[in-house]
Amino acid sequence: MNTMTETAALQAGADGAPVEPATPSFRDELIASGLLIDTGENGLYGRSQVFEDVVDRLNAAITHLGADQDPEVLRFPPALRRTDFEDSEYLKNFPQLAGTIHSFCGNDAGQMRLLRCLDDAMKQSDDDRDPAWMEQQKPTRLVLTPAACYPIYPVVARRGPLPAGGSTIDVLSYCFRHEPSLDPARMQMFRQREYVRLGNAEQVMAFRQMWIDRGSLLVSLLGLPVDVDLANDPFFGRGGKIVADSQRAQELKFELLIPVANADSKTACLSFNYHMDHFGGIWKIKCDDGSTAHTACVGFGMERITLALLKHHGLDVNAWPDEVRALLWGDTRARIEHGLKESGA
Amino acid sequence: MNTMTETAALQAGADGAPVEPATPSFRDELIASGLLIDTGENGLYGRSQVFEDVVDRLNAAITHLGADQDPEVLRFPPALRRTDFEDSEYLKNFPQLAGTIHSFCGNDAGQMRLLRCLDDAMKQSDDDRDPAWMEQQKPTRLVLTPAACYPIYPVVARRGPLPAGGSTIDVLSYCFRHEPSLDPARMQMFRQREYVRLGNAEQVMAFRQMWIDRGSLLVSLLGLPVDVDLANDPFFGRGGKIVADSQRAQELKFELLIPVANADSKTACLSFNYHMDHFGGIWKIKCDDGSTAHTACVGFGMERITLALLKHHGLDVNAWPDEVRALLWGDTRARIEHGLKESGA
Repeated sequence: MNTMTETAALQAGADGAPVEPATPSFRDELIASGLLIDTGENGLYGRSQVFEDVVDRLNAAITHLGADQDPEVLRFPPALRRTDFEDSEYLKNFPQLAGTIHSFCGNDAGQMRLLRCLDDAMKQSDDDRDPAWMEQQKPTRLVLTPAACYPIYPVVARRGPLPAGGSTIDVLSYCFRHEPSLDPARMQMFRQREYVRLGNAEQVMAFRQMWIDRGSLLVSLLGLPVDVDLANDPFFGRGGKIVADSQRAQELKFELLIPVANADSKTACLSFNYHMDHFGGIWKIKCDDGSTAHTACVGFGMERITLALLKHHGLDVNAWPDEVRALLWGDTRARIEHGLKESGA
Repeated sequence: MNTMTETAALQAGADGAPVEPATPSFRDELIASGLLIDTGENGLYGRSQVFEDVVDRLNAAITHLGADQDPEVLRFPPALRRTDFEDSEYLKNFPQLAGTIHSFCGNDAGQMRLLRCLDDAMKQSDDDRDPAWMEQQKPTRLVLTPAACYPIYPVVARRGPLPAGGSTIDVLSYCFRHEPSLDPARMQMFRQREYVRLGNAEQVMAFRQMWIDRGSLLVSLLGLPVDVDLANDPFFGRGGKIVADSQRAQELKFELLIPVANADSKTACLSFNYHMDHFGGIWKIKCDDGSTAHTACVGFGMERITLALLKHHGLDVNAWPDEVRALLWGDTRARIEHGLKESGA
């Protein structure tokens, strides 16, 4: 797969004829600079040490931003138990995005068949290879994590009722979504950091408003434009629009949008989600008064925020504005605490 | 799934009758202490903040241990391009361990069928659910990373010949292996940190010997027993024993083994692997003189080393020996540099 050719194709004219791009795309620049490493697959990139360092420093800033909430820190591998995934109703809304994990469970004869299929396929060019060898792959009991908070609900449910004030949990995970794209901000595998609040409706709505304020504070301290807007998830199929309209009418989802890949369109870099009692009902998570728990989360798209910084402040991290460098590589804690105090967020 | 029942079953007598375990298993202790979080699926655990802090500190120690090698730091998501995975010949050796990623690619009618299958399955108990809804899942172009170094070979190959001294690369990734187990040291998803050396045979063999010495140094500084032994990979099928014998005869793999789950058996916590020109040949990685590159790697099992520490020094990290605490949470760099100087490793 040739990246330049593909990018040019994306920029083809209305008649389909390739148009020489006036400037290299942001994706091309990221790859040429070595910040992202092309794997040949759209939406799957390696990250350089510089890129990872920005992600690490952003994570530290987000930790300070939420420290007064005394969250429980939990970390999960990027997969869920399949039955938990099935229970979550993700397949009702986003079947096209999920990734299930399959393995070979056969014997010697099965492996011989598999290798013969594979040998035939490998006579073709990479993009034309027939995946017939995968017909023997059987479903395992694991599904890739679609959003960082999914593993926590069944775990919290098993602990019994929430404490009186509810719970706040801090998670971070690689997530998978099957949406190969040339937009570097739309990866198939990316990291989400989340704070998740479980409690009654009032606690959870207050949490979401606080994080709209705190997320906006962080983004403004990073020298990026702040634009929070009502949003909806990409629900599947013909019925999807109705569900999306309903989600908007109920104001369940807000996003903080920043131009990343180009100036004309904006990318959701943070999201602020109220799930009502959806997860609480599925897993029978109870408040201390016996009522079904409501939940909300704030999600930080770690790659997307990093890409927004690279787009707005340039690919040379050392040349970023002093204030932004001081926030990330200086006394991060003091600057975050000062920002919280000044803004009241 | 009931963990206690399963653990008891593992400890069943020869006649299959359950035997009351004299003491809780290490797995039970890890879960009861909250260091690992049970997901209900063998080999898939959440990690507590304390567990993750140990992993982070180990990673810092490993960074200092390799700093004088000036490695290139690259980080990849936990998946490979499928064609690269196919090229790697992993399916010849370990088809049973690989995890391929599949997605739903159908339309509204397909989703309706999927949801009907799923509704039927959900009438059963978790363990009896029929995964028939997954029959519509189609292979994607991604496969889960089986070992942290796999993504780098095709990337390095595309850069052209290696520099004169060869290359050293630092990688870290979650890896997947389909081997559900009650042994907490045998996870389905776990992190490997690796240094990978690419160069001529002499450079690569010197690297491996250096890392046998440095890995042993780290483990002794951690207050753990050092036992390095010749080893082989778990090659699949009837022919697997022949390949394993050949690997041993050629002394391609060594492991550093530490008792983890119990005192009677040892777990490979580090491995030291010489691939000869296997990866170099597949991806046509060339040395500066045009010869095919040889490769070797040292792999640190991050969860396994953490579990070894918890087994040998106790579940209360604050009560670990002073020397171990000083290494991990004190001046890690100075202690590692001192250890390297003293040992000549």
